[in-house]
Amino acid sequence: MSTRPTLTREDWIQAAQRILIKGGIDSVRVDNLAKELNITRGSFYYHFKSREELLQSLLTDWRARATENIIQQLGSTQYSPKERLQHLLGLPFRGSAAREAAAFEIGIRGWARRDPLARQAMDEVDNHRIHYIESVLKQMGYIEQHAHDTAALIYAYQLSIAIVHPNSPSTERFEQHQRIIQQWLDTPIY
Amino acid sequence: MSTRPTLTREDWIQAAQRILIKGGIDSVRVDNLAKELNITRGSFYYHFKSREELLQSLLTDWRARATENIIQQLGSTQYSPKERLQHLLGLPFRGSAAREAAAFEIGIRGWARRDPLARQAMDEVDNHRIHYIESVLKQMGYIEQHAHDTAALIYAYQLSIAIVHPNSPSTERFEQHQRIIQQWLDTPIY
Repeated sequence: MSTRPTLTREDWIQAAQRILIKGGIDSVRVDNLAKELNITRGSFYYHFKSREELLQSLLTDWRARATENIIQQLGSTQYSPKERLQHLLGLPFRGSAAREAAAFEIGIRGWARRDPLARQAMDEVDNHRIHYIESVLKQMGYIEQHAHDTAALIYAYQLSIAIVHPNSPSTERFEQHQRIIQQWLDTPIY
Repeated sequence: MSTRPTLTREDWIQAAQRILIKGGIDSVRVDNLAKELNITRGSFYYHFKSREELLQSLLTDWRARATENIIQQLGSTQYSPKERLQHLLGLPFRGSAAREAAAFEIGIRGWARRDPLARQAMDEVDNHRIHYIESVLKQMGYIEQHAHDTAALIYAYQLSIAIVHPNSPSTERFEQHQRIIQQWLDTPIY
């Protein structure tokens, strides 16, 4: 046990993510975090003014990692719109990191049911992602209404991969996913 | 405050549902339930042996109300397969009861991440619903693989109505929902 600031702000945020996944937002408390990191509570306040500041950072970090960075990275590639969509649609199957991201997102959604700050972050993330998918579809030639509806449908389906049978990402499911995606990409544009 | 068994088993289960929605499964405790119902803790044990028995009843009741009864009722109507599908697809928009059911289901999904009993109930409910949709699609003439994939897609989309923007069931969203459904029902069968 030590009060030296050997841990970074990022370490505390990551610990908070793990605790949110395990026990929900109510368990993200300074005492639990200190226990998880095997350090005294006091060193928490070296990085954060309060629990509220940590929770705010948790949301900011999530928005950056799970949405903004991905969209920015895709924008900097030479991918065609169709390739960008394919990349996005494959994200839920990118191994254990994807499973952990999905588990964290379910935690955020549970939190958002009770907290206006989390709900606002979640609504903005949902809108940002849907609008991005919509913009890619428009670049692929979809007209307004069809792009709008198809984006909602694709987003719904993507979310469901983490929510329906989250513990059995079987080969069968992956193959079904690939068939459904292929069908979308092959759908004649109207 | 009274220890008389004036409350029914059903009253305790409903109180547990409200508490799960508000605070997650950890807050579904005998003391919180008694407070919610304004009665002594002792009367809980008139209906249930333990908290575990209540949690088990919560799952059993959910399976019956949210899946089995609906499927049974649909089976007893003179609806065509297409009408049965239309009825199912309209369920998330049936007012405040639908919103409460959705909120409860998100609570169950949060619980299922940490508890094998809840996870098993959730997996069985998901499978039961997907297989039912699949069977209706087959009755409509869809072939095996297409029925299987379309059922997964329809179920994903239905779940997402409660999960994406749960607090803004706007007219715009309802109209989009109707368009997407109509498109499915009009899709040529292959």
